[in-house]
Amino acid sequence: MRELEIRPATPADIPAIVALLADDPLGAGRESPDDLAPYHAAFRRLADDPNQHLVVAVRANRVIGTLQLTVIPGLSRRGTTRSIIEGVRIHADERGSGLGTRLIEWAVDESRHRNCQLIQLTSDASRTDAHRFYERLGFTASHTGFKLAL
Amino acid sequence: MRELEIRPATPADIPAIVALLADDPLGAGRESPDDLAPYHAAFRRLADDPNQHLVVAVRANRVIGTLQLTVIPGLSRRGTTRSIIEGVRIHADERGSGLGTRLIEWAVDESRHRNCQLIQLTSDASRTDAHRFYERLGFTASHTGFKLAL
Repeated sequence: MRELEIRPATPADIPAIVALLADDPLGAGRESPDDLAPYHAAFRRLADDPNQHLVVAVRANRVIGTLQLTVIPGLSRRGTTRSIIEGVRIHADERGSGLGTRLIEWAVDESRHRNCQLIQLTSDASRTDAHRFYERLGFTASHTGFKLAL
Repeated sequence: MRELEIRPATPADIPAIVALLADDPLGAGRESPDDLAPYHAAFRRLADDPNQHLVVAVRANRVIGTLQLTVIPGLSRRGTTRSIIEGVRIHADERGSGLGTRLIEWAVDESRHRNCQLIQLTSDASRTDAHRFYERLGFTASHTGFKLAL
């Protein structure tokens, strides 16, 4: 296994990230890899926000994974700062390789480094394999996640 | 019913907000209303982050509700910006009064105004009344929420 690097995403990574987002049972119907303009606009919004950390996992110059970490201060739980993980994707060729674990471990380390006391994420109810994965990593499925499209 | 105002929280609101956070079956064990220092520090972190919107609901100069809205840009779903609701609390005297609905409607309107296309939240699995409340407001319980204390 060649060396894996987890680093901040750059605009040059956008096509590879969007390909990962689209190569997914849920993502296939809601991404547009042939029209990258909305992703470039969103990347600028991410880059302008110091609490957003979009990273890519790279091996042999190939983007094989991605994850977004958001740091959220708050008053509850005695002023706990929490982090939220969104958009975890692993290239189809790399699933089962331990890369997902490496990415989540990166997110945990980075959250500690940024003085977060809690890390959280939601996963679609249909992603039962992902749920077992997060439980193996020590997460507790304590909450119900609600969404409303605007 | 006297006029209700929903407005950004100020440092002077911190004692009332912490009292709301603590007057809750889950919050009782994890808040410290007798030691406000960590809340003041957390308030400064919130104030420094333009994507954080901590509000209070006030009637007759009394804080009777609170909510935190966070705006999160992202690449997934064609560059969707989403908002996350955290820390919804209603004063015990005001539960069932429609105030919760007013607060969530404020969050929905504010999210639209800030160009969010998706609004999401998690609720502890034990809060079954809250789950029915969010479903009545149009939210879908599509996700499982995971947490890991650091």
